[in-house]
Amino acid sequence: MLADFSLLDPVAAGGDAWAHTTDSAYVQALLDVEAAWVATLADAGLAPEGAAEAVTAAAAVGEYDLVCLAERVRGGANVLIPLLGDLRARTRDHARAAGADEEQVQAAAAVVHRGATSQDIMDTAAMLVAQRAGRALVGQVADASAALARLAEEHRGTLCVARSLTQHAVPTTFGLRAAGWLSGVATAADRVRAAVATLPLQWGGAAGTQAALADYLDRERAQITTAELTSALAHRLGLADPGAPWHTQRMTVTGLGAALADVPAAAGKIANDVLFAARPEVGELGEPTGAGRGGSSAMPQKQNPVLAVTLKQAALAAPSSLAQLYTAVGAANDERPDGGWHAEWSALRTLLRTAGGAAEQLAELTAGLRVHPERMRANLELSGALVVSERIMARLAPHARLTHADRAAVTGKAAITELVQTAAATGQPLGALLREAVPREAVTDAELEALLDPADYLGTADSLIDAHLDAYRKLNLHD
Amino acid sequence: MLADFSLLDPVAAGGDAWAHTTDSAYVQALLDVEAAWVATLADAGLAPEGAAEAVTAAAAVGEYDLVCLAERVRGGANVLIPLLGDLRARTRDHARAAGADEEQVQAAAAVVHRGATSQDIMDTAAMLVAQRAGRALVGQVADASAALARLAEEHRGTLCVARSLTQHAVPTTFGLRAAGWLSGVATAADRVRAAVATLPLQWGGAAGTQAALADYLDRERAQITTAELTSALAHRLGLADPGAPWHTQRMTVTGLGAALADVPAAAGKIANDVLFAARPEVGELGEPTGAGRGGSSAMPQKQNPVLAVTLKQAALAAPSSLAQLYTAVGAANDERPDGGWHAEWSALRTLLRTAGGAAEQLAELTAGLRVHPERMRANLELSGALVVSERIMARLAPHARLTHADRAAVTGKAAITELVQTAAATGQPLGALLREAVPREAVTDAELEALLDPADYLGTADSLIDAHLDAYRKLNLHD
Amino acid sequence: MLADFSLLDPVAAGGDAWAHTTDSAYVQALLDVEAAWVATLADAGLAPEGAAEAVTAAAAVGEYDLVCLAERVRGGANVLIPLLGDLRARTRDHARAAGADEEQVQAAAAVVHRGATSQDIMDTAAMLVAQRAGRALVGQVADASAALARLAEEHRGTLCVARSLTQHAVPTTFGLRAAGWLSGVATAADRVRAAVATLPLQWGGAAGTQAALADYLDRERAQITTAELTSALAHRLGLADPGAPWHTQRMTVTGLGAALADVPAAAGKIANDVLFAARPEVGELGEPTGAGRGGSSAMPQKQNPVLAVTLKQAALAAPSSLAQLYTAVGAANDERPDGGWHAEWSALRTLLRTAGGAAEQLAELTAGLRVHPERMRANLELSGALVVSERIMARLAPHARLTHADRAAVTGKAAITELVQTAAATGQPLGALLREAVPREAVTDAELEALLDPADYLGTADSLIDAHLDAYRKLNLHD
Amino acid sequence: MLADFSLLDPVAAGGDAWAHTTDSAYVQALLDVEAAWVATLADAGLAPEGAAEAVTAAAAVGEYDLVCLAERVRGGANVLIPLLGDLRARTRDHARAAGADEEQVQAAAAVVHRGATSQDIMDTAAMLVAQRAGRALVGQVADASAALARLAEEHRGTLCVARSLTQHAVPTTFGLRAAGWLSGVATAADRVRAAVATLPLQWGGAAGTQAALADYLDRERAQITTAELTSALAHRLGLADPGAPWHTQRMTVTGLGAALADVPAAAGKIANDVLFAARPEVGELGEPTGAGRGGSSAMPQKQNPVLAVTLKQAALAAPSSLAQLYTAVGAANDERPDGGWHAEWSALRTLLRTAGGAAEQLAELTAGLRVHPERMRANLELSGALVVSERIMARLAPHARLTHADRAAVTGKAAITELVQTAAATGQPLGALLREAVPREAVTDAELEALLDPADYLGTADSLIDAHLDAYRKLNLHD
Repeated sequence: MLADFSLLDPVAAGGDAWAHTTDSAYVQALLDVEAAWVATLADAGLAPEGAAEAVTAAAAVGEYDLVCLAERVRGGANVLIPLLGDLRARTRDHARAAGADEEQVQAAAAVVHRGATSQDIMDTAAMLVAQRAGRALVGQVADASAALARLAEEHRGTLCVARSLTQHAVPTTFGLRAAGWLSGVATAADRVRAAVATLPLQWGGAAGTQAALADYLDRERAQITTAELTSALAHRLGLADPGAPWHTQRMTVTGLGAALADVPAAAGKIANDVLFAARPEVGELGEPTGAGRGGSSAMPQKQNPVLAVTLKQAALAAPSSLAQLYTAVGAANDERPDGGWHAEWSALRTLLRTAGGAAEQLAELTAGLRVHPERMRANLELSGALVVSERIMARLAPHARLTHADRAAVTGKAAITELVQTAAATGQPLGALLREAVPREAVTDAELEALLDPADYLGTADSLIDAHLDAYRKLNLHD
Repeated sequence: MLADFSLLDPVAAGGDAWAHTTDSAYVQALLDVEAAWVATLADAGLAPEGAAEAVTAAAAVGEYDLVCLAERVRGGANVLIPLLGDLRARTRDHARAAGADEEQVQAAAAVVHRGATSQDIMDTAAMLVAQRAGRALVGQVADASAALARLAEEHRGTLCVARSLTQHAVPTTFGLRAAGWLSGVATAADRVRAAVATLPLQWGGAAGTQAALADYLDRERAQITTAELTSALAHRLGLADPGAPWHTQRMTVTGLGAALADVPAAAGKIANDVLFAARPEVGELGEPTGAGRGGSSAMPQKQNPVLAVTLKQAALAAPSSLAQLYTAVGAANDERPDGGWHAEWSALRTLLRTAGGAAEQLAELTAGLRVHPERMRANLELSGALVVSERIMARLAPHARLTHADRAAVTGKAAITELVQTAAATGQPLGALLREAVPREAVTDAELEALLDPADYLGTADSLIDAHLDAYRKLNLHD
Repeated sequence: MLADFSLLDPVAAGGDAWAHTTDSAYVQALLDVEAAWVATLADAGLAPEGAAEAVTAAAAVGEYDLVCLAERVRGGANVLIPLLGDLRARTRDHARAAGADEEQVQAAAAVVHRGATSQDIMDTAAMLVAQRAGRALVGQVADASAALARLAEEHRGTLCVARSLTQHAVPTTFGLRAAGWLSGVATAADRVRAAVATLPLQWGGAAGTQAALADYLDRERAQITTAELTSALAHRLGLADPGAPWHTQRMTVTGLGAALADVPAAAGKIANDVLFAARPEVGELGEPTGAGRGGSSAMPQKQNPVLAVTLKQAALAAPSSLAQLYTAVGAANDERPDGGWHAEWSALRTLLRTAGGAAEQLAELTAGLRVHPERMRANLELSGALVVSERIMARLAPHARLTHADRAAVTGKAAITELVQTAAATGQPLGALLREAVPREAVTDAELEALLDPADYLGTADSLIDAHLDAYRKLNLHD
Repeated sequence: MLADFSLLDPVAAGGDAWAHTTDSAYVQALLDVEAAWVATLADAGLAPEGAAEAVTAAAAVGEYDLVCLAERVRGGANVLIPLLGDLRARTRDHARAAGADEEQVQAAAAVVHRGATSQDIMDTAAMLVAQRAGRALVGQVADASAALARLAEEHRGTLCVARSLTQHAVPTTFGLRAAGWLSGVATAADRVRAAVATLPLQWGGAAGTQAALADYLDRERAQITTAELTSALAHRLGLADPGAPWHTQRMTVTGLGAALADVPAAAGKIANDVLFAARPEVGELGEPTGAGRGGSSAMPQKQNPVLAVTLKQAALAAPSSLAQLYTAVGAANDERPDGGWHAEWSALRTLLRTAGGAAEQLAELTAGLRVHPERMRANLELSGALVVSERIMARLAPHARLTHADRAAVTGKAAITELVQTAAATGQPLGALLREAVPREAVTDAELEALLDPADYLGTADSLIDAHLDAYRKLNLHD
């Protein structure tokens, strides 16, 4: 059968985020919204007896042929139109099966979608899907954050080299690096959580005036207002009541999209660091090994960092979907956009899927990340004392003096610079070179040794870890 | 002289947002940060006498040759490195001019940038620029929102046609359309305001450990901590104190960028509507006319809607900058990224400029928008009673019966559909056709006339305007 | 079943482009490549007897469970790895079913994928899919081009107004507008055709050195070189022989992607024009009406321009996929990229699907576009003689003189400008106003009338139509 | 003065590409087009005497106040409108200075821009700028290609490890890696060259009908056609004659943009490889050292790979500009787009600048790239014989047998896999382990040693280098 199964999208393939955002899941959400609406009408005495039960029974995606549905999408440029026809037919079937007479059967079908327009259902269903996928995502990133917090604590004292523009800069700790990672992903999770917590119903009728619904209530001399009904629908669906339709004001969509895109962006930082650190030349980190992870059939020695690879894939891909979303929203016009609305759908879905898949991979990566402090130390030592040259410059320049056979003596910063460059170029230990240039009366051997110790030049690393951990804990991501 | 002046960017050309975000403005912000840092050190007794005064005097962009600066950017892939050299030289000049002796002169230069790294200055200056540009933007969008709120109130009763997928759908009011516009831009303004209110200092030293600064405080046996000093600096600059460096966790940058991109997205909706409505065939709206706005030298009858044109330009352009920003952030690695950081700068600047320019154009557009209710009414009447066909279907189908000479009678929805299509195809008045098909005992002439009146089919338009206005007022955008 | 069926992508939903690019189609292409490789080896005497037949029999997507495949994608971050296992198993089954003994069975499975790496198969299969989808696309755009060429010919003399920045500018013909549309889409089709005609095999082994293959040939003392074998494979698959692997040099991919993105960009121009022209206020064009196209269940009078809506969707969406593709290619590293490669896949697929879907919709739109010359004429006449004000300015300014009771006479361009603005503001006929200001001795009544005739101010419209048609015919798109 | 000087764009800062694409350069190009047009008219006897000289004298950007120009851009949403006024004024000045009488002075000003529209000038000037910047770019990439060809030749025999998904895969040579780099950038250069070679004039008048020009020729009873005149103008400007205006069919622009974006994409691959290889842990490559390149004031031992950093910046940034360009082109409508056209300008400029800057940095990087074969060898040896495990599997599996005290013997591929994993996990030499498992009668010691030699497992690396070099030479990029 012709269909897509996430085969070209490794970050999401076969995972929960994918499952939450398939076309099947969207159709289920569309059906959920239609069924909830009839149930809401029924609660208000506005649906014929048995209708809610019949629609609810019909509102199961398994009852529909999605390929056949796909073939009818182009007719009206949205899937709800053909689905609605199918839903009414299945509603009749279920009503009949429940023993309704033909008038009841027709009445049940007729109340489906009462006063609504296809955009109401599409937008509201998209919010449902986003809520389901978004909550799962937040849980995954919360797990990843907890794992990163543990790493930060555990590796407070694990020395490693801080790199700037690829080069060794100064010493740091792996704990601080992990705390930084935590800061990024926890912020992203917090933003998605906030966006997901307030996803609103969208319910405006043909053009945002709710006219058909109001007219219906008027015809039926209903004792309930449109506002009360839409509020009840929102409550039933677990969505926020926005107070007014937002069919052409799509800030909800951009806000959600931007928060989602933060997840792969923050995870990208971690992936980039892991991809480097897991290289054989570096060896500071390793991905969790596990069944079916990262092996190569042809080269059995290889253990590919596939989790980080897919996180990098996500970080490279997500910004494009975000751009598509904003472009679509900015192209809105009239009371229902003529293409802008349609260009949103796949972009939002892809963002949910990419961000959600990234969350899953990140949770797995952080839960089992293997840390190799001895390789961190060894890499730090590649630079020897050069890694504290910043401090040497500040501390020893006032005392340094280099005499030369063939030219004038050099002092101060120039002397330190010359020594550092000699050490870097020749591999001679910087400490010995400095000892020649700095008199012992100014700096004793013990003082010099202490100055050159990277473990003694960590600045506020420890308290910064605490700052990150405190900020993370205040977010209460697992609530 | 070789330089850019916004000539290829009409939405921003020559405006305040552009002025706030020029390279000149960035250099001033860089100098402001360096000067504020020395002043902060001086307050803590950590700068030599006269140094703060000398640096402050040197911290004026007018003293620097920016073309010469540009030529030295590539050397280290950032502008701060050459600027710092120039700033130290000018600091010496000013110290000398103030009567300092040579030791004091050198000491003043030496304290500049003490314990900082170029990224600290670049990031913090970017936040200053964003704050300045962002506040101006919020003011402009607040003005536009106020103008839209007035339009919504004033045109509560101005009938017009609601359009869906370009076609006439049902009646609405221009007040409700304006209230929808308001909803979008006010939300965008609120988000930018929130982002701008919490822009943080970024201060981490060479690799986020603040080691050089901590070492300096240790050498000087200072009675102040790095945290206290950075907090004081943040306070002096009017920025938030983030608690920890965010050199490689750039969620602040993505959050700001996403909020900024909401402005052209929300304004794009308005622009698209105005561009259509200002067409001669439509004539429902007109841009404010004014000196130098929209004229054509060759065709004197033309009045081009140039404000909306540039808003559409902004809506088409901004998403790309946002994508660049997220891509850059997701490419971060190590303790200073090797290209990701660099790809952020122009993207953030362009977003500030595009969003800010859009805010200015939107304020001008909304302040002077000309509304033509009579053309709105005339366009609505193009569809005659067809524009309430939704209601006719609901109300009259139960009573309709069409007899045909040559085939069976048609009743119910099918009858209404046939009449509506006849009216649409032939131009015959729908009311007369319906009168033939619906017996007067079911629907009187007066009832039929009322049913066909678009002014009577506005749903909850009026209360939705109130809902939008209430939500807007709660935002207090002018605070 | 969980799967995607293009339900959120109206431009492609249920069409050929979608069918050519489903995951099912990709898996078939992967199997085609593996089977072709064994067949190629067999031709060279390098595969055991019966192996090619067994693999070929196994190379049918219907034999595989794609959902189960999806669940195993993440393990190695690509689908080929689990598929290869399944393919070998099915090959054994088919070999056994064909009566092979166990050694032959194992040998048949062993020769599958001989000397290849998963990237070889993935890249080559992507080229196959692109070729299949691309050829269909070119055919569709060629059809659309032929239809546009007919419209250009047929409407050479159909007067309409040319619009600039939404306003009436000067007269033109619908034929010239259609010829311009043709120019864009024919160029796009030509580019896709060129890209598709040279899509190359990608065959480099584990890291682009073809070492495993060369080693195999060496072991087997084969009389054929790696170059000859890969050339034979390319020939068998109908792909170009690139001479060398391009596993990490992806200019083929960007070139293809850019050509594909030209299709929705060029179609977007047409869509935007149709969406405007099909509005009730304008009425110059109508979409083809047909079964299931553009109807609205709730509002039977509506005929939505759904083809143009989905073309606009495509034009808004495609650039983001193109950006993703370029970002992915620019992130390549090493001998197999660590995420950049993976981020390409969905982007290229989406481009094929969006461009191909747009081609289908465009073919349908252009084949049945309804043109309403009388509405074009009526809209042109809205501006009266103002639409030739450019010419009036040039022709009559030298003769114009306006006398005023209360101020000095105005002559030349200023006089014409004043009259044009009076006509625009008051609706007075410009001809009559001009007659007052221009003496008959300078310009006779007949001359004046001729000057004001829009049909006489068409410039070179006719020969420009010819130029576009000539250029189109030279492309021979239907070859 | 408020202006931009490329300070936030390190890849382009202060370089030739920037100089070719400043606003100053665009204004000069606008003036060049206007002057060339008057000269063309003069050649045809259609300009008053002295007019061409006066306009040419006035056509120097230095005569204009660009800040003042910027302030007037918004009025008509393009810079040409105010510039035209200024140009006419300066033309009068120069005519007067040349001794013209007042009638001649006015006539000279009047012939400026005759029959043209602002879009004609803007589009044609953009093509001029693109041509100038594009040719310089091609020269730079040609230089880089030549340098890469030399590296490929020189390092044919330089062994290094091929990496796949960050892990060691099989041996390769640095020559082949460099040849691959060459293949990408030479293809990109070839595409830009092709695009630049055919950049066309755009000349259509107010709405693409050339009506004003045709009318002028008619008035003047000129013996020359519009086609002849525009052809002469194209020739004078060194641009192609497109045969018809392309004001709203912008495939020229997308084609150019896509070719430009290929440059940073291809260079990105090189940058990513260099950024990794220049890390202290790897040390395989070094950037050219030079005055002002990559130093760090605070950390004198650091040598930052700033060229590669800015190339990566370019690769991350360019795709967004390309997306903006395609979005803008796809938003075209009418006979002059209402925002789509305007959103193109900055995107095309940024692409020219980013691609051109990348070309310059790439030329510098490749000219001085330092290659360290000994570090390549050392890194290759980190994996020992594991790096030929692919071959070991193929060659030795048939002979391998591992006996175990506590479980059944293992043979074939399973035995090799076990040994390889033991070697990888324990660091034991794979050769010794294999020797235990493979009998000498099957594989002698000498044969085993040869099998494990990475230098003997290079596949077709050498002939693939030739294939890349041949393809490169055929392009004749320096022609």
